[in-house]
Amino acid sequence: MPFFDLPQSQLDSYRSSAIAPADFDSFWAETLSQSRAKPLEAVFEPVDTGLKLFDVSDVTFSGFAGDKVRGWYIRPAGVATRGTVVKFIGYGGGRGLPQEHLLWPATGRAVLVMDTRGQGSSWSRGDTPDPAGSFPAHPGFMTRGINDPKDYYYRRVYTDGVRAVEAALGRAETDPTKLAVVGGSQGGGISIAVAGLEARVKAAMPDVPFLCDFPRAVGLTSRDPYGEIVRFLATHREKAAAAYSTINYFDGVHFSARSTAAALFSVALMDDVCPPSTVYGAYNAWAGPKSIESYTFNNHEGGGTWQERRQVAWLDETLP
Amino acid sequence: MPFFDLPQSQLDSYRSSAIAPADFDSFWAETLSQSRAKPLEAVFEPVDTGLKLFDVSDVTFSGFAGDKVRGWYIRPAGVATRGTVVKFIGYGGGRGLPQEHLLWPATGRAVLVMDTRGQGSSWSRGDTPDPAGSFPAHPGFMTRGINDPKDYYYRRVYTDGVRAVEAALGRAETDPTKLAVVGGSQGGGISIAVAGLEARVKAAMPDVPFLCDFPRAVGLTSRDPYGEIVRFLATHREKAAAAYSTINYFDGVHFSARSTAAALFSVALMDDVCPPSTVYGAYNAWAGPKSIESYTFNNHEGGGTWQERRQVAWLDETLP
Amino acid sequence: MPFFDLPQSQLDSYRSSAIAPADFDSFWAETLSQSRAKPLEAVFEPVDTGLKLFDVSDVTFSGFAGDKVRGWYIRPAGVATRGTVVKFIGYGGGRGLPQEHLLWPATGRAVLVMDTRGQGSSWSRGDTPDPAGSFPAHPGFMTRGINDPKDYYYRRVYTDGVRAVEAALGRAETDPTKLAVVGGSQGGGISIAVAGLEARVKAAMPDVPFLCDFPRAVGLTSRDPYGEIVRFLATHREKAAAAYSTINYFDGVHFSARSTAAALFSVALMDDVCPPSTVYGAYNAWAGPKSIESYTFNNHEGGGTWQERRQVAWLDETLP
Amino acid sequence: MPFFDLPQSQLDSYRSSAIAPADFDSFWAETLSQSRAKPLEAVFEPVDTGLKLFDVSDVTFSGFAGDKVRGWYIRPAGVATRGTVVKFIGYGGGRGLPQEHLLWPATGRAVLVMDTRGQGSSWSRGDTPDPAGSFPAHPGFMTRGINDPKDYYYRRVYTDGVRAVEAALGRAETDPTKLAVVGGSQGGGISIAVAGLEARVKAAMPDVPFLCDFPRAVGLTSRDPYGEIVRFLATHREKAAAAYSTINYFDGVHFSARSTAAALFSVALMDDVCPPSTVYGAYNAWAGPKSIESYTFNNHEGGGTWQERRQVAWLDETLP
Amino acid sequence: MPFFDLPQSQLDSYRSSAIAPADFDSFWAETLSQSRAKPLEAVFEPVDTGLKLFDVSDVTFSGFAGDKVRGWYIRPAGVATRGTVVKFIGYGGGRGLPQEHLLWPATGRAVLVMDTRGQGSSWSRGDTPDPAGSFPAHPGFMTRGINDPKDYYYRRVYTDGVRAVEAALGRAETDPTKLAVVGGSQGGGISIAVAGLEARVKAAMPDVPFLCDFPRAVGLTSRDPYGEIVRFLATHREKAAAAYSTINYFDGVHFSARSTAAALFSVALMDDVCPPSTVYGAYNAWAGPKSIESYTFNNHEGGGTWQERRQVAWLDETLP
Amino acid sequence: MPFFDLPQSQLDSYRSSAIAPADFDSFWAETLSQSRAKPLEAVFEPVDTGLKLFDVSDVTFSGFAGDKVRGWYIRPAGVATRGTVVKFIGYGGGRGLPQEHLLWPATGRAVLVMDTRGQGSSWSRGDTPDPAGSFPAHPGFMTRGINDPKDYYYRRVYTDGVRAVEAALGRAETDPTKLAVVGGSQGGGISIAVAGLEARVKAAMPDVPFLCDFPRAVGLTSRDPYGEIVRFLATHREKAAAAYSTINYFDGVHFSARSTAAALFSVALMDDVCPPSTVYGAYNAWAGPKSIESYTFNNHEGGGTWQERRQVAWLDETLP
Repeated sequence: MPFFDLPQSQLDSYRSSAIAPADFDSFWAETLSQSRAKPLEAVFEPVDTGLKLFDVSDVTFSGFAGDKVRGWYIRPAGVATRGTVVKFIGYGGGRGLPQEHLLWPATGRAVLVMDTRGQGSSWSRGDTPDPAGSFPAHPGFMTRGINDPKDYYYRRVYTDGVRAVEAALGRAETDPTKLAVVGGSQGGGISIAVAGLEARVKAAMPDVPFLCDFPRAVGLTSRDPYGEIVRFLATHREKAAAAYSTINYFDGVHFSARSTAAALFSVALMDDVCPPSTVYGAYNAWAGPKSIESYTFNNHEGGGTWQERRQVAWLDETLP
Repeated sequence: MPFFDLPQSQLDSYRSSAIAPADFDSFWAETLSQSRAKPLEAVFEPVDTGLKLFDVSDVTFSGFAGDKVRGWYIRPAGVATRGTVVKFIGYGGGRGLPQEHLLWPATGRAVLVMDTRGQGSSWSRGDTPDPAGSFPAHPGFMTRGINDPKDYYYRRVYTDGVRAVEAALGRAETDPTKLAVVGGSQGGGISIAVAGLEARVKAAMPDVPFLCDFPRAVGLTSRDPYGEIVRFLATHREKAAAAYSTINYFDGVHFSARSTAAALFSVALMDDVCPPSTVYGAYNAWAGPKSIESYTFNNHEGGGTWQERRQVAWLDETLP
Repeated sequence: MPFFDLPQSQLDSYRSSAIAPADFDSFWAETLSQSRAKPLEAVFEPVDTGLKLFDVSDVTFSGFAGDKVRGWYIRPAGVATRGTVVKFIGYGGGRGLPQEHLLWPATGRAVLVMDTRGQGSSWSRGDTPDPAGSFPAHPGFMTRGINDPKDYYYRRVYTDGVRAVEAALGRAETDPTKLAVVGGSQGGGISIAVAGLEARVKAAMPDVPFLCDFPRAVGLTSRDPYGEIVRFLATHREKAAAAYSTINYFDGVHFSARSTAAALFSVALMDDVCPPSTVYGAYNAWAGPKSIESYTFNNHEGGGTWQERRQVAWLDETLP
Repeated sequence: MPFFDLPQSQLDSYRSSAIAPADFDSFWAETLSQSRAKPLEAVFEPVDTGLKLFDVSDVTFSGFAGDKVRGWYIRPAGVATRGTVVKFIGYGGGRGLPQEHLLWPATGRAVLVMDTRGQGSSWSRGDTPDPAGSFPAHPGFMTRGINDPKDYYYRRVYTDGVRAVEAALGRAETDPTKLAVVGGSQGGGISIAVAGLEARVKAAMPDVPFLCDFPRAVGLTSRDPYGEIVRFLATHREKAAAAYSTINYFDGVHFSARSTAAALFSVALMDDVCPPSTVYGAYNAWAGPKSIESYTFNNHEGGGTWQERRQVAWLDETLP
Repeated sequence: MPFFDLPQSQLDSYRSSAIAPADFDSFWAETLSQSRAKPLEAVFEPVDTGLKLFDVSDVTFSGFAGDKVRGWYIRPAGVATRGTVVKFIGYGGGRGLPQEHLLWPATGRAVLVMDTRGQGSSWSRGDTPDPAGSFPAHPGFMTRGINDPKDYYYRRVYTDGVRAVEAALGRAETDPTKLAVVGGSQGGGISIAVAGLEARVKAAMPDVPFLCDFPRAVGLTSRDPYGEIVRFLATHREKAAAAYSTINYFDGVHFSARSTAAALFSVALMDDVCPPSTVYGAYNAWAGPKSIESYTFNNHEGGGTWQERRQVAWLDETLP
Repeated sequence: MPFFDLPQSQLDSYRSSAIAPADFDSFWAETLSQSRAKPLEAVFEPVDTGLKLFDVSDVTFSGFAGDKVRGWYIRPAGVATRGTVVKFIGYGGGRGLPQEHLLWPATGRAVLVMDTRGQGSSWSRGDTPDPAGSFPAHPGFMTRGINDPKDYYYRRVYTDGVRAVEAALGRAETDPTKLAVVGGSQGGGISIAVAGLEARVKAAMPDVPFLCDFPRAVGLTSRDPYGEIVRFLATHREKAAAAYSTINYFDGVHFSARSTAAALFSVALMDDVCPPSTVYGAYNAWAGPKSIESYTFNNHEGGGTWQERRQVAWLDETLP
């Protein structure tokens, strides 16, 4: 992939053209209060995985509209927990198996991994249904309910994310001053949204985040998942205005502007899944203390485990 | 595409290995009776399309579980109707626009085109929601609810198809001795299912039908939509038995064995979407009078408009 | 396909750099007068297609140099014809079968569909030979005779198009005040040429037209058919000047500037077969009354049947 | 490319199922006598290429129906010629430039390179028109005139090949006991045909020959050029019988059975352009003394220059 | 990927046709004794990774010919080690970063991860040079030194693997009765070789192993890395005998026949990188107690983390 | 390939941003003096190829560090040699067989073809080992030793090239006033380097040269071989500075600025392997007399044999 987006010098000062809808905050306040009206009912069921150094639980909690959302909760066995990380998953994947999430527990922190509803049947497996149906949508998740913010798929997912933080905060061993969120790609986008919606999040580590700066992202790249929107609108030619209006309630740029947690972003300059300018659109809008790692020669794999190493060090400094 | 499946001589006598579940008939009887418990409420709303030779109506009726299903109804304006054809759509598409369905009205017959719930956001547009959610499924429709026959997506679609026939039969101008079903690919699969479930169907014209002979189809081709099942099971490795058990309730081979209508099939020997042996698996099981057009050098486009011409002549002979 | 051409705001005022050759008009006047020296000999042979609402004829007429060109002529049976549309076909296709052309007859107008000589062996079938051979040309039709305007393939095709209009005008039921031309892609390019060459055309509806603004098109996209010219010149490196000189006699931009009919264009902003700027190059040069539908998220499929609906309404207003 | 055809052990004894038409010999006798009725008019125009060790001429002679065919004639300058090789070109290419044909002159033999009419606008350039037009044909040359042996493109090409041999034999320096033909792929197919039609050919060296064993080749591979026939018949579904009947007059298997020259074939076991069984179909039918080099791991590049080295040695033994 | 290899029923009894060279054992005995003549000089340098639950060391030891090979050594911090696993890496990758290898330490076992010399510049990073040059080889590692077993790349790698086991056995905390090897793809192939060469290995867990049953693998699939051999031999046509003779010293089938450790294999029936029959070729030859997990719908990803879970349980049973 | 780089008008004046390292000249002086300390030991072994018009020798000489490098030496038999051309090969290829190099001997000049160490196992064959190993490198040759100029692969290759010129100059028949270098792609890059390092080169003919203007080339195209550097740095994220520092010692731009020979370049405007601006980066820096042929519609094939014809004429003028 050659360089196709803005050069680093312009990225550093790039500002997204997205302007939040006037009722953005009330939309989300109402959304959260509706779901919070249902009891969280977080259940942590211990499972034997053979990973003797860790206590692993199969998690279930009430997400959007009380729908049951699954996850894993993993913490060091027999020692004190140094803090908690809530982790969100990339597009198409699910919570997988516990051993896929040992990084943060290995640092002494607990991790709560949230399954992404409906997803989890491609590169990793999931176990959480999405009980909501949809008007005609392009295969995938990007256009489910895109005709109305109230029906949009990510309204449910972002709300699930906020409730996952609540589930983590409900654990006795959780130190509320050391709660972080993390995720790559879609997981990065959810991290940004949750950090913007839930002020109890103290640190956020979005990697090559998706779901940011929609006005620039759609049509800048033809790759999925942004490409799903393009193909949907290629068929539903008259629905572009409604679709753009809907996704504006879900743009990471607006959540960034409302986030006061410390943040460590990453971005890759050859990333044609989540183009670098769209990541900087969110990063430059972030309202809290922040830093970003820019990987010059990477596509959407970004920094990979190299960035993980950076995250471990950064989180040890930020929430020691 | 080179020839990859059985040669014509072996296709002529090929029998599918699929054996219907013992409760196949009761499963479907119960399914239909449940949905039929809801009133059909077929509404035909005239629309002005500028197609002055035809009367066009926007159709809504109650399909599976009473869900509202859309369609088009088109008949010659100002002359008597010579019979009625119910048409089902290929995978991914929707009812589109009325002018896409003028063939049968041009022959003097009415056509009722059924939208496919949830689909219609890729090669043609649809307008019918699928209000049912799903446990984690691979993008597309093939694996939605595949863990249980009661939840499987095509249980809803096939039932919609039966009710579409009922909606057509409810029209005053419909001659019940001249009711046919037609469709290509997925539409052919639905045609077979509906003909097997609803004895009032007098003629069926499945083109290069999909949804037939699952035990052979899955793994014989890697192309979609059968490939969706392969990719789903590549992730959900432990669900193969449940998935195969589920799809066995939806195999065109079994509906063929229960169909007594006259049938005109088509098949293409280079078709790697719906491999020819899977089509013959259904065709050779068909219980009524039948014939088939075999296109040697075609992939899934099959006979295309060439087969349409054959269908017009065949239906004029069969239901004159 | 991401956006790769000019944005809409610049397209609205884009002007092609193509300048017509000084003898453009005399070249075409001579071309037409030579072919018109041969009798048209239009024959309309009724055929039984089973399409009972329409009268269908197999058409033969003398095109360029008296070569026999085939087509279909379809009009409503038993009612008056409301006008006539001459339709040209996209690249690679042929006249196909009559039922592929029911849109305009369904609106009460007659349609004369012209086969494209030599083509019709890929996405749809044709029946018209091109008796002219060629010096070495790249596979396809774009470079046949490209070394000399007199030998260029489209000299024959455009002339056929003009004569097709004459054949339509020769019908007793034709209302000469209601003669339109239509076509997509190559068919759109032929429509523009015919409208520029034959003033009796009253309305033109070119969809995502091909064969426009060659200086910009060649090298802006690598896709066919423009790509055929690139590959030809990659081999015949010394023939670029001659090739550009030849195609300049066939550029839709120049025919547009000579057209006084009313026009409805369409264009797609992600079209990398006929890039949007090349379509605007022709549209902005059009000398008659005009409007254009711009599809933001579509590639070369453009508006598809959505645009057909627009065309039916527009033609009812323009030639009521 | 994995192995996809018969293994070597079965290839060694494979016999094609093709049976020559009853009038095969009379068809060709008549074809040749018609063209031979026109004077050959071979012209050898010296050209200065800077290749000082060779005398190079631009050749023109009358081929099929007297059409002018171009070529190059290259022989060592200032020394006696050791024999003559007539060379035919692979599909899509033309005679190119003289320095592309120095192998045989470097061995002391003269080479006459025949341009392939109409071709020469892709991988190498040509200069010979094909003045014959065609009924609708798929892009490329394989289906031009395929509805009738008299109109088929290769009737003209094979006849050109025979006349090229005549042109070579007409040179004063030509030793008629040392006349060979050579060519790869299409050039190999022409070599076989010419050796079967013209008994004055003493040696033939077809490399990975094309145009052999059509009944097996068509549909065994989807790659071009055989794939052109598949795609043509996918559109012209009713023309399969006529097309197969036509190409049977042009099958290398039948020419092989009529060839008495010495032959050195080559074949590649991973060749999916000219599958190995189709080459063996011709080789095993060859009526003269013969040997074959089989390249196990090669696709259509076959032995490449490695086989050239073998040919030089073989020809030095065969026509010393 | 459709099924392309033998069905499960035939796989269960498939035997490779590979026969070990007569001097196979002496070749390897000499190879190992030469390298063992150099001191192992295993160095374990503690590194601070922030993974507080584990002690991590950067490992260096003397591999083939005393070349320095790198690795990671990770064991639970502050608790006793339950056994040791030596892990080898898949083709193209390197040792990466420590957090990529937490599975076995999380179960209470130590892991020693061996870097693969020269590799580690594509999907994961490595730090070990391969100081040996090569005669002309195809890009990649499969054909480096393939003309002579003494020069072949995998002679060095397999020897490194044996010495890695020695390095692990040299740790004070290592329980020699609980030493296992593991690896996927190339790592699986190395595991098999090491288990066949070093009897102190008590358990082996090769996943979808590469480097097995060369006579069947080469040419059965065109995908890399086996495809590297095909492309090499396509150029070096005369070297096939030497290449086959060389790789026969490195075929997992022969090492399997010499392995007495307990083994847990995995295989995937749609694996076109390491075709299932080649895996069964090694598995069915394995001389020790064994079991295999067969994944029906997977390509080379095989069982992925699902198989990891199986391995953890199996190793707890086998080396408790 | 559409046009993707600068237009011709800007190319004409484009200057590379690359600045040579301060010790560029001393680095190369030291490199050459070290290798020249070893005796050249050029051996010319006559071989019988059947190419009777030429004397062919299999060449061996001492290249970098005394490593034995192979080649072919071909000159007209029995006539005086008109000058000498040293030829370098494109990426991945080797010296092949003698008949692949007859162009220059056919013009009366001797040619010495240098094998490229390690290469020659893909599109043409080679016979020269590269005895140097490498730290982890991406498959291919571009990143071997890229962490240090002293270890970089092209340090060895460029030095081999200089010594090849010495080997040619050592022949009795060589006229030192008529020594030229030539090569396409990588061969063009080596030609530039050798002409910059060895003042006895009188003329250079780099075709579509590779290895020029690294700062612009890397990331402008994703195709190989430049893409190998991108993929290497995608894995070895921290090595970008070292890699760029290394390749700056090997940039054709700097050698061009030191070359005083006459030069004939070629460039192709659609070349996405060696983008045209990178070629002009070297061309515009060339210090001697120069001209360039620009091919508008070609990708990396450039002018092909058309440019050969130009080279023959140019060399006849330049070194008559």
